[in-house]
Amino acid sequence: MGKMDNLGEHNRHCPVARTAALVGDTYILLILRDLSDGPRRFGDLERSVEASPRTLTSRLRQMEAEGIIVRHVFAEIPPRVEYELTTKGRALAPIVESLRQFGETWLLDDGQSQTR
Amino acid sequence: MGKMDNLGEHNRHCPVARTAALVGDTYILLILRDLSDGPRRFGDLERSVEASPRTLTSRLRQMEAEGIIVRHVFAEIPPRVEYELTTKGRALAPIVESLRQFGETWLLDDGQSQTR
Repeated sequence: MGKMDNLGEHNRHCPVARTAALVGDTYILLILRDLSDGPRRFGDLERSVEASPRTLTSRLRQMEAEGIIVRHVFAEIPPRVEYELTTKGRALAPIVESLRQFGETWLLDDGQSQTR
Repeated sequence: MGKMDNLGEHNRHCPVARTAALVGDTYILLILRDLSDGPRRFGDLERSVEASPRTLTSRLRQMEAEGIIVRHVFAEIPPRVEYELTTKGRALAPIVESLRQFGETWLLDDGQSQTR
C-alpha cells in the first residue's frame, strides 16, 4: 500500500495529487536528483542526500515499491548494492528539472535572487 | 527560519535541494495546484486539499513565510480571508504541470496506465 492510498476521495483520481503523494517528500526528490545522473550505491546516496541510513532506507523502499527505482545486488565480496531509476522513474526527470529552474531563479543563497 | 535551513552543507547551495525543501510536501503541492486557478478561501482549500484545519494552517503559514502566497483579509462581516499566489508562487506553476503530466501518463487509477 502506497501513499497514494492515503489520498481522500476528492484527490484519489487527480493526476497532480497522485504524483504529489508519490514525490511530495524532500528526500525522495533528492534521491531522484542523484539517480537521474545514473545508478548510485547506498553510501553515495547517504552522503549526497545527507539523510540518516534509516530515513534513506525507508525512502528507497517506498520508491522500489512504487516501481520508480530498482535495487541491483552484485555478487561481489563484500556485496555491492546499487539503485537505479526504472523507465517510470526516469519519466520523473521533468519534475527535477522544474525544481532546478525555479531554484536557480528564485532561491539562490547569494542574496541575488528575487524574493517575491 | 524555513525548511531550507535544515538542508546539510552539501545541499544548501543546490537549487534542486532548496526547491525540494520548499515544496517537498504533498499538502503544499496540493495547495499550489488549487491556488494556480486563482485565490481561494480557507474552507475551499480545506475541502479540496482534504487536510485537517491544523495541517492546512501550518502549510499556509510556511508558504506565507517563504513569500509564495499572500493572505488577504476583507473587512466584511464575517471577515473573509483569501490566499493568493505571489509572483514567486506563480513561478512554481511548471512544477505542478510536470506533476500533472507524469500522473496522467503513469498513475491513472483506471488500470490503463503503465506500471514500470
